[in-house]
Amino acid sequence: MTNTLIRITYDGTAYSGFQLQINAPTVQEALERALEVIYKQPVRVIGASRTDAGVHARGQAANYQAPFRIAAEKLPYALNTLLPPDIVVTEAQEVGEKFHARFDGRRKIYSYSIDLAAYPQVMKRSSSWHLLDRMDLKVLDEAARLFEGTHDFKPFRATGTVIADTTRTIYRVEPLELPEEQFMVIYFEGSGFLYRMVRLITGSLVRAGKGLVTLNEIKAALAGINPAAIGPTAPAHGLCLEKVFYEL
Amino acid sequence: MTNTLIRITYDGTAYSGFQLQINAPTVQEALERALEVIYKQPVRVIGASRTDAGVHARGQAANYQAPFRIAAEKLPYALNTLLPPDIVVTEAQEVGEKFHARFDGRRKIYSYSIDLAAYPQVMKRSSSWHLLDRMDLKVLDEAARLFEGTHDFKPFRATGTVIADTTRTIYRVEPLELPEEQFMVIYFEGSGFLYRMVRLITGSLVRAGKGLVTLNEIKAALAGINPAAIGPTAPAHGLCLEKVFYEL
Repeated sequence: MTNTLIRITYDGTAYSGFQLQINAPTVQEALERALEVIYKQPVRVIGASRTDAGVHARGQAANYQAPFRIAAEKLPYALNTLLPPDIVVTEAQEVGEKFHARFDGRRKIYSYSIDLAAYPQVMKRSSSWHLLDRMDLKVLDEAARLFEGTHDFKPFRATGTVIADTTRTIYRVEPLELPEEQFMVIYFEGSGFLYRMVRLITGSLVRAGKGLVTLNEIKAALAGINPAAIGPTAPAHGLCLEKVFYEL
Repeated sequence: MTNTLIRITYDGTAYSGFQLQINAPTVQEALERALEVIYKQPVRVIGASRTDAGVHARGQAANYQAPFRIAAEKLPYALNTLLPPDIVVTEAQEVGEKFHARFDGRRKIYSYSIDLAAYPQVMKRSSSWHLLDRMDLKVLDEAARLFEGTHDFKPFRATGTVIADTTRTIYRVEPLELPEEQFMVIYFEGSGFLYRMVRLITGSLVRAGKGLVTLNEIKAALAGINPAAIGPTAPAHGLCLEKVFYEL
């Protein structure tokens, strides 16, 4: 068996997320189908991140145990000829037999895209959240900084999820304004993210930008004493998994 | 009757171009349907540019004679609630009764987008031409300059089209490289463009960038004595009508 790490970019619009589901199209399913054609037997794919329905990826990562060796540099082309046009494998490399795309992820970057134009920019409509209300981007930026550092992000995860350790370190929450494009991208870089955490933080940042919550209210929310300042969950289609980092 | 000029942006992927056709979905048809709901009677739309099937627009223009007056600032919102999400009206204004969106166009800007990444960037796959071959962008840039100025562009129009005057003035053909995005956009600004002219010029520029035609061969093509250096026609989905200028 040859443990293989692949990097994948996809348009999540047509998929019910990355992870395999019964009766719903997923990116994992598409990858496993293509791999089965190549290796002529079922191959199980382990994704770095589950990405929700509608969420995109420029740098998803996954690994699988290949039943036999194929030169890594040939794999992307071979897979892409079998994959639908909204999923593209951009890289493949052999890794140690114990490597696990999910457990070994050291750092991730997500982006959240917001269309600030008066009317939706149609070519970006499936990859950005169009906001009608004007925002104070300076306030949004200040709110973003509150999330940087090591915090217990328990309040900023989807309710119903059970997880022992909800402490995560966020290295940066960086809103990047592109005034000429009437567009904004917020970058989130961290050791890891809880379920729906990026979308919940984005929801709070947008509300801060609109003046609907104050910085102090967000601080209190992060401290677990003001749930009213949390979210709402920003729509899935603005979110994109940009990169997963490993120590290889 | 109130002659009304509207500006429209659309994702051309699902349409057989702007202009009305029998048994094929067009942008004009979608607009006329929405207008008929608003005005409760058929309304004929005149587009500035016919844009082919699959071609996009950020700044298409059109005019129509409104049977009764509706405040221009209310029209985009009213139309957008009736239009599909891939067509958005961004502006409306009242114009003189003789105004004609096609005949009165003084200047147009088109863009042609090229994806230079090793593997297609999936979120841009319906709005750019992905080129596998490496290009010399300096040569492409030099080739672009050859098309600037006033020329008889007869060789750079789709065969079969009959038009009396094929002389046009191009103010700029400007390739803009975006190295961080592994992307290139070529802007074409001119007094007017012949049928398929931008896509044929783009095809020649790309061949020059690949080293398959020389600058002298392109010069000869433009002079009408070397058809071999013309085109091929670049794919429709990389083309976007950016703006139409009027003297109002």
